[in-house]
Amino acid sequence: MLVQRFASIVGSAGIVADADVARGYRADWRGLFEGEALCVLRPGTVEQVSQILKLCHAERIGVVPQGGNTNLTVGAVPDRTGQQIVLSTSRLRRIRDVDAVDMTIVAEAGVTIAELQAAAIDVDTLFPLSFAAEGSATLGGAISTNAGGTAAVRYGSTRDLLLGLEVVLPDGRVWNGLRRLHKDNAGYALRHLFAGAEGTLGVITAAAMKLAPLPRAREVAFCALPSEDAVGDFWMLLRAAGEGAVRAAEYISGTSLDLVVYELGLRAPVHASPHYVLVELTSARAEAGLRDRLEGFLAEALEQGLATDAVIAQNEQQAASFWRLREDQTEAQKRAGLNFKHDVAVPVSKVGELLVKCRAALEARFPDVLVAPFGHLGDGNIHMNIIRPPMPGRDTLPDLEAHIGAIVYEIAAALGGTFSAEHGIGTIKVKQLETTRSAVELDMMRVIKDAFDGQCIMNPGKVLSIVEVLPI
Amino acid sequence: MLVQRFASIVGSAGIVADADVARGYRADWRGLFEGEALCVLRPGTVEQVSQILKLCHAERIGVVPQGGNTNLTVGAVPDRTGQQIVLSTSRLRRIRDVDAVDMTIVAEAGVTIAELQAAAIDVDTLFPLSFAAEGSATLGGAISTNAGGTAAVRYGSTRDLLLGLEVVLPDGRVWNGLRRLHKDNAGYALRHLFAGAEGTLGVITAAAMKLAPLPRAREVAFCALPSEDAVGDFWMLLRAAGEGAVRAAEYISGTSLDLVVYELGLRAPVHASPHYVLVELTSARAEAGLRDRLEGFLAEALEQGLATDAVIAQNEQQAASFWRLREDQTEAQKRAGLNFKHDVAVPVSKVGELLVKCRAALEARFPDVLVAPFGHLGDGNIHMNIIRPPMPGRDTLPDLEAHIGAIVYEIAAALGGTFSAEHGIGTIKVKQLETTRSAVELDMMRVIKDAFDGQCIMNPGKVLSIVEVLPI
Repeated sequence: MLVQRFASIVGSAGIVADADVARGYRADWRGLFEGEALCVLRPGTVEQVSQILKLCHAERIGVVPQGGNTNLTVGAVPDRTGQQIVLSTSRLRRIRDVDAVDMTIVAEAGVTIAELQAAAIDVDTLFPLSFAAEGSATLGGAISTNAGGTAAVRYGSTRDLLLGLEVVLPDGRVWNGLRRLHKDNAGYALRHLFAGAEGTLGVITAAAMKLAPLPRAREVAFCALPSEDAVGDFWMLLRAAGEGAVRAAEYISGTSLDLVVYELGLRAPVHASPHYVLVELTSARAEAGLRDRLEGFLAEALEQGLATDAVIAQNEQQAASFWRLREDQTEAQKRAGLNFKHDVAVPVSKVGELLVKCRAALEARFPDVLVAPFGHLGDGNIHMNIIRPPMPGRDTLPDLEAHIGAIVYEIAAALGGTFSAEHGIGTIKVKQLETTRSAVELDMMRVIKDAFDGQCIMNPGKVLSIVEVLPI
Repeated sequence: MLVQRFASIVGSAGIVADADVARGYRADWRGLFEGEALCVLRPGTVEQVSQILKLCHAERIGVVPQGGNTNLTVGAVPDRTGQQIVLSTSRLRRIRDVDAVDMTIVAEAGVTIAELQAAAIDVDTLFPLSFAAEGSATLGGAISTNAGGTAAVRYGSTRDLLLGLEVVLPDGRVWNGLRRLHKDNAGYALRHLFAGAEGTLGVITAAAMKLAPLPRAREVAFCALPSEDAVGDFWMLLRAAGEGAVRAAEYISGTSLDLVVYELGLRAPVHASPHYVLVELTSARAEAGLRDRLEGFLAEALEQGLATDAVIAQNEQQAASFWRLREDQTEAQKRAGLNFKHDVAVPVSKVGELLVKCRAALEARFPDVLVAPFGHLGDGNIHMNIIRPPMPGRDTLPDLEAHIGAIVYEIAAALGGTFSAEHGIGTIKVKQLETTRSAVELDMMRVIKDAFDGQCIMNPGKVLSIVEVLPI
């Protein structure tokens, strides 16, 4: 029997026997989908991953790689057939090397982002990735989805930190590409193919990542902005004034702030306003003069009418309270009703226009909804979230989500934007990818998928639907 | 006749009729190789590129894309069969868009790096790429080879600046992937596949690139270092002190400096020493206090014995004279005799060891040669160049190059390094790629090549030799 063959590869510690526990691997974190699985495997070594894939390859069994299962697009759980296995990397937990001179860390796929942050701090460096799910999300998952987060404006997304990879290919062969070099122009950039591929080309088992200097100074400010028009200019001024020091520039709409205040009892540190931006500057040099620079920037922003109010955190506790207003958005929105989330990005110059147009179009069409965007201003990446307060008897409107999505995505696309900035495609955006991107772009993705995984056993149906591929 | 069919696509302005002129497209810049060509085409539009590739695809004609023909690995010239065409992008010269708010530039493949720098300055921004051949090298070539250069330590290599691409595929179809977004996680990162592919997967016709804030302040210092041991620590100290401001950290060996002094009559600004580093700090903020930071760093480096002498340029002219000591290396080495160039990179902590071991091994084995390395210290990228002074009657030693190369590359590999840091593979490193990288890595490259270009008409024999490909 197949399950026994898998069990003989991973041993009893490597197979999830308890049905309740297994459910946590079959259902996605947002509760949007629960699949079935032939079994849930937790291999303890790269060699075991290789053997699992060899068996899957021979028997044509679908493999769903999973890290911390914090994916937001139903990209890491199996389908409903019960014929796929879940391959959790959660036991690949070794940090193989940390080098403070080269500023690199080599770690296995199942190490969490928070653990990487801690390991970096131990040698006086920074692991730059930072996002809400960092306590559970793993390195392998972050690379597979090219995770972004609040520090991407400074350090880039996961891809930008990636130096080398170790990957088990669909046929079970292991590619050791764990180079730690800042320059290596020797053939195709294979690591960039696996980054963002969401487990559809192979299983990432380890990676070599860049570290950064550990910040020794930090300043956080919470700013109120008068209008959408001010948002872009505020960012430009901050970008110039904060050169090299801007670690975060997080946008929060007035509606979004009202929600955390109302739902979670938090307090706004500035006067009520239609828009807010949380600014964080950091520097590895304690004497970098960040406070002066931040004060100078805010004075100029107020003077130019780009901000109407601003408060600089006077201590760590106050800084943390500012950050909660941003970080608790997801929780507050969840409590406020039905959520419709849209992870869009536009060129940063178009963020103001995106905000104006989405609000106008959505409020005109759906008078019942709250338009509550927030996101990463410096990246042009706005989470255009829409909330429908609970309305007994009316929550089943079947195509509300599609209607709202069509409006948001059409506006973003017209501004040169994308429908998936940092969350990826998973299963929930496959149709959108396949209907909005050009035939030639899709063909290229399909021939790559086919070249690496001709049997389509790797995370089938994620990113791309399953189709027969013709050569270019 | 085939040539007439090509001529009818591009018109008389698009075909190089003069044999002497055509030679400039058939021979590589270093004079290592001269090929033959069916014809040399200079299409004036993307549509013409598409038609050329359609014809080549139908007739199975090899296409050699060429930008400024400044490639260093014989990667942009045709073979000796006379059956391939050269497709020069030199008439695709339109800058389609420059946006100072979004800090992006969209330009066609034939625009030179110097022209992009000028266009960026026109809107008060910086196009960050900078390297010796920038006056001739084109955007398409820089992306295709993932060019590095002296500012990569600050801004990354070409790949790191790349936001979107327009590519004509081997069958003539045009992919418009000219997005200008900082985040776009919607399927495989196709742009990263063409970057560094050296024209073997398609012809890049345009790209969207990041710009950076224009520097308003600059400080340049020339430093003497006492030993290989000091090199790594010098860099670490500079990286910390210069946080966010280090624009260049260029290593020059004592031998290399002696050569520019002797061959070109330049003057060393510091005492004679076995090692030198040229440091440049820049900032977009005129008030960034760079001079103080540089002085503080140099005082500390002298104090710690990591430097024995250092001079800060007092004006632009002096800064330029420091830079000539680095930029004229290639010319001086050319004059000094037979050159054996090795574009290696190691983790930055290993640079000192690389220098020690290469010099010891090479001088022991070849008492006649000069070991004259220079390069990009912050990237761990050292051009380990060896010079054999002219020796009448002995210059034909057939396997000297192979012997020297074997020593250098073995030492670099043992230190976790690469044999091609920023110059790519072209034709001259194909064998090395195929003998040193793992079978699984090569298989992945071959299935990609095969998936995109099954007929192998795109720059045949570059990066990978021509072999039959089996599916993974």
